[in-house]
Amino acid sequence: MSQTSDMNAILRAQPATHAEGHFPADRIDTLAIIGVGLIGGSFAAAIRQAGAAHRIMGAGRRHEVLVEAHELGLIDEIVSIEQAAAQADFIFLATPVGSYELIFKTMAPHLLDHTVITDGGSTKNNVVQAAHVGLGERVGQFVPAHPIAGSHLMGPSAAKADLYMGRQVVVCTLPENPAHAVERVIHAWRACGAHVRSLDPKQHDEVMATISHLPHWLAAVYMTHVLTDPNSNLDLAMAGTGFADFTRIAQGSEEMWRDIMMQNREVMLAQIKAYQVVLSEAHQVLESGDELILQAFLQRAAIARRKWEANRT
Amino acid sequence: MSQTSDMNAILRAQPATHAEGHFPADRIDTLAIIGVGLIGGSFAAAIRQAGAAHRIMGAGRRHEVLVEAHELGLIDEIVSIEQAAAQADFIFLATPVGSYELIFKTMAPHLLDHTVITDGGSTKNNVVQAAHVGLGERVGQFVPAHPIAGSHLMGPSAAKADLYMGRQVVVCTLPENPAHAVERVIHAWRACGAHVRSLDPKQHDEVMATISHLPHWLAAVYMTHVLTDPNSNLDLAMAGTGFADFTRIAQGSEEMWRDIMMQNREVMLAQIKAYQVVLSEAHQVLESGDELILQAFLQRAAIARRKWEANRT
Repeated sequence: MSQTSDMNAILRAQPATHAEGHFPADRIDTLAIIGVGLIGGSFAAAIRQAGAAHRIMGAGRRHEVLVEAHELGLIDEIVSIEQAAAQADFIFLATPVGSYELIFKTMAPHLLDHTVITDGGSTKNNVVQAAHVGLGERVGQFVPAHPIAGSHLMGPSAAKADLYMGRQVVVCTLPENPAHAVERVIHAWRACGAHVRSLDPKQHDEVMATISHLPHWLAAVYMTHVLTDPNSNLDLAMAGTGFADFTRIAQGSEEMWRDIMMQNREVMLAQIKAYQVVLSEAHQVLESGDELILQAFLQRAAIARRKWEANRT
Repeated sequence: MSQTSDMNAILRAQPATHAEGHFPADRIDTLAIIGVGLIGGSFAAAIRQAGAAHRIMGAGRRHEVLVEAHELGLIDEIVSIEQAAAQADFIFLATPVGSYELIFKTMAPHLLDHTVITDGGSTKNNVVQAAHVGLGERVGQFVPAHPIAGSHLMGPSAAKADLYMGRQVVVCTLPENPAHAVERVIHAWRACGAHVRSLDPKQHDEVMATISHLPHWLAAVYMTHVLTDPNSNLDLAMAGTGFADFTRIAQGSEEMWRDIMMQNREVMLAQIKAYQVVLSEAHQVLESGDELILQAFLQRAAIARRKWEANRT
């Protein structure tokens, strides 16, 4: 049976069956959040609202962020990454993906045998590599995940318990993951109200490049284009709702997006090349001035977008 | 005194002074809307809500649209373009810009001397040319305008009285426009709740290409890219809020956008070329893998977008 079949069997099992002798899938005594910003803080808030953890710890690089998260009631206490690894039975990693390897290395010597780790990172291929390097033989304790939810807002103050409600979470199981670890991670995401879907890490990164990373890139390139336009000040003064929608994603954390672009660089470079080809073809259509072909081009895009909206869940 | 100075003097005059012997600036006996869709229907609804017209006529190519607009109470009666020209003292043209020349030609022989025409078209350079050809010596009766407001929704059912409330309307006065005609058009737009701003038609088209036409083009190219991606179905199934925002404008009427792109083609071709240069430069940044430069690129775009949001009125 393939890995994906295992995963699908686990996804189908409802309610989750508790593997004999393992930590119960539906119980988290101590949850640790590494990186209590929008993603980590919302996971904490959702798990707390579901009553799915007894105690929530927070760790991370910036003390002031942890203090804010504590004051907001997202976490019960502030700990070091080593303390989190030594005390938590469920760890959620929500720092920029470029930091994972070091965090895994820091945690590895302290991890309890039954502890599971999942994450909220936007790329998966390199995250899996970082887990192999950083966790070594404990790599099976890490069940990579990616919630398709977010906001251009940042920090603990942007966290909300319903961020994952009704949203999709991609779980990319590793061959090393025991079924009970996968089960616990799926259970936690479902407690947040999310729909869990299984994807291979490589395909995950390709799909995310297309639907998330490339739009961010194009919006950032567009903002740069506007800043270098001769009418730049007037442009910005006149810009309306279309501009606002089209560029909203470009506000996202540059640190987070730098890591995403670097971690998914090869796929992104190929996506940009493919986009450039379509852009050049479209330029030729406009240059030719053939109104029928021009309208067909715009219509195809418009119909696809309207259809997507109509099918949106 | 230059044309722009005249315009600014009129913009400053508050309340509007009524030129002796001319039709009062604050009165519309019969308003005619040519093209009663989102833009035309919203103008009708706003003018009616402001109590600024006694009677509202609607004309246009598609009878079923006019019937719908009549049933919705946007217009009081359905007339031909010739009847509209012969009876209205204020005409609002809100059909795709490619249709203007023919409509101007149809109206010209019937227009009353005191009637003013304004429009809601997204391009202005070619619209002014169409007015010269179509209206001939009556060109001074046309005061071109462009409300920076809209929606991806279409048709009379999408019309709403507050569409222009608090929005900017660009008025591009012609050297042939008498002051009282400009004054009446400004008064009507202000009655809709809009802020009136003066721009030269050429600069209007350049600014609009940057902040509106290019984003639409890039979103349409992006949708085409997604449709041709090997993971296309999975892409669309997984797409979330960032994708939704980034592509929302691509839903707009392909007929309207075909005309906009054709009418503003030279400016758009230059804009696309300039965007391609930035896209290639950004590609090199990502390819080089220099994280500092990559972050600086993303940060510049993010800061500009956040600043724009903060300054947004």
